[in-house]
Amino acid sequence: MKKIFNKINTLQWNNGALEMLDQRLLPSRVEYPRFESAAEVANGIRSMVVRGAPAIGCAAAYGMALEALRLQAQPHDAFFAGLARADALLAASRPTAVNLFWALKRMRTRLDSLRGAQPPGIAGALLVEAHAITDEDVRLNQAMGQHGAALLHDPMRVLTHCNAGALATAGHGTALGVIRSAVAAGKRIAVYADETRPFLQGARLTAWELMQDGIPVTLIADSAAGLLMRRGDIDAVIVGADRVAANGDVANKIGTYGVAVLARRHGIPFYVAAPLSTIDAGTACGDAIAIEERPAAEVTGHGGTQWAASGVGVRNPVFDITPAELVSALITERGVTRTPDGAKITALLR
Amino acid sequence: MKKIFNKINTLQWNNGALEMLDQRLLPSRVEYPRFESAAEVANGIRSMVVRGAPAIGCAAAYGMALEALRLQAQPHDAFFAGLARADALLAASRPTAVNLFWALKRMRTRLDSLRGAQPPGIAGALLVEAHAITDEDVRLNQAMGQHGAALLHDPMRVLTHCNAGALATAGHGTALGVIRSAVAAGKRIAVYADETRPFLQGARLTAWELMQDGIPVTLIADSAAGLLMRRGDIDAVIVGADRVAANGDVANKIGTYGVAVLARRHGIPFYVAAPLSTIDAGTACGDAIAIEERPAAEVTGHGGTQWAASGVGVRNPVFDITPAELVSALITERGVTRTPDGAKITALLR
Repeated sequence: MKKIFNKINTLQWNNGALEMLDQRLLPSRVEYPRFESAAEVANGIRSMVVRGAPAIGCAAAYGMALEALRLQAQPHDAFFAGLARADALLAASRPTAVNLFWALKRMRTRLDSLRGAQPPGIAGALLVEAHAITDEDVRLNQAMGQHGAALLHDPMRVLTHCNAGALATAGHGTALGVIRSAVAAGKRIAVYADETRPFLQGARLTAWELMQDGIPVTLIADSAAGLLMRRGDIDAVIVGADRVAANGDVANKIGTYGVAVLARRHGIPFYVAAPLSTIDAGTACGDAIAIEERPAAEVTGHGGTQWAASGVGVRNPVFDITPAELVSALITERGVTRTPDGAKITALLR
Repeated sequence: MKKIFNKINTLQWNNGALEMLDQRLLPSRVEYPRFESAAEVANGIRSMVVRGAPAIGCAAAYGMALEALRLQAQPHDAFFAGLARADALLAASRPTAVNLFWALKRMRTRLDSLRGAQPPGIAGALLVEAHAITDEDVRLNQAMGQHGAALLHDPMRVLTHCNAGALATAGHGTALGVIRSAVAAGKRIAVYADETRPFLQGARLTAWELMQDGIPVTLIADSAAGLLMRRGDIDAVIVGADRVAANGDVANKIGTYGVAVLARRHGIPFYVAAPLSTIDAGTACGDAIAIEERPAAEVTGHGGTQWAASGVGVRNPVFDITPAELVSALITERGVTRTPDGAKITALLR
């Protein structure tokens, strides 16, 4: 029997603290450091203990709940002022994943509905809300998986870029959730995983995560995707998203755009799996999305080892924009939206 | 004044031995191990002490000369049998770069012309031939540089992939030779260097080589090229080649094809700089070119450090094919061949 369960938790609530799997240590070590304040969670997001748009959203929600618990003995005004600072701190932790802002807005809405209550009661309610966001994320991913699995044939060789798996979410995954659901439905799916420089999420996370579930995975350099497509070795591409603009443009891990352009050239379907919380109706198109630049050291080496010449100039944008015209279908918890565009995105959000 | 000379020798003849810059140690160490037989040179090529199609050709020529010197006291028959073994050994060291086979064929032709001579005389003549191949390579690169420099404007931002520099040749370089010649002509050229996973020739070699010459260079992850092109940050692409087929298809470092597809999408010229010895009239098209696969360890980590999960499946093809239709111009020592095709390649070789 196939093991289609995800055996690892990206984040878990344990005895008054958020524990997050430190993804910087994978696959060599599985460790769950504890986070007990919004500042600690913001640092965890910034330093990529946790990454992946949906997981970042869940972490930020817990960050607000943790801060409320930490400040619950404060007077009402100090409590709300502290939560406003926590909100701003968490919002500044990463710029591109819109789920971060979506989750913070949801927590703010809940907070606003509780203005008349006492801090301990509010803190409890915010924790319930963070749990709900996390539980919902898993359910949404499972729904997305069901919808998306129908797009995958048996057998199929599927390329993915970065990690849009259980490790990028509260569980099951977006792009890898679709693959998990297809495998659960008995389809033979073989995955090619781009290693995903510079942070190597494909090599370190996707390969490991799929191996845990017994799903066949082959690791390749990012630059090998073109040759494999040209040879006919790839039947479909599926990726996640950090933000989807109102016109359907997709911000995702750097390199996604190149994969999409190659897929189009070779007539290979290019699928994006993302929950509705990833869609940013307030951003008209991809070019309006802020692209995070991360430190040069991610490109000049890895994990403390440097291999490039010291002092070399570096550009390290870590997301890119794939225009909607290159997306064969957007998979959300509501279903499959083929050839997404502004009108279809608007309809989807109604 | 700009320093446009290459300050390092890829290979040099010193007191009866070939010394080759160990490119696996760059940029942290500059070391010149000595090679005294064809077997040692073949190992050096296989293990990538030396790489780059033209440099491999020069190394192989010296490999034959070294073997002739080593066996010059042997009887005539044993001497020729030993050289035939050396030829086969060197030919098996790397499969894709055609300059290797071209240089060995030229050495064989010289050897055949000397069948009646005594081994010591033959050995001396083969060493003269290896020196000639190496000297010619530098002159060809300078001619290519002059022709190609006319294609580059002032100022220009040029993307290159892998290392087609002085380090890939006997000096000056092919793609980087064009850039060097343009800089020498007073043009302000800024280079974006793809890091070039898995072996990181861009990060380790191209960045270092250009910094030695004071040419501005910015290192990027391979997957960032698409975003930079979309933003309008790249004006031209120039790469080298490991083999050019009779129809103009180009085998070059894995990832070249993806860069060419992106360049076409963005209307950016894509130039290939390669000497005529890189053209293989005997190979009809790119799909007939053997693509070397190298060890999985190059993808699962780098330099002894492993970051991917142990036991993951890996594909590591290290070259890909760019169809001639994506090549804006082929730059050789004979000049610039725009939109190369079978007829133009045939004319070029006449």
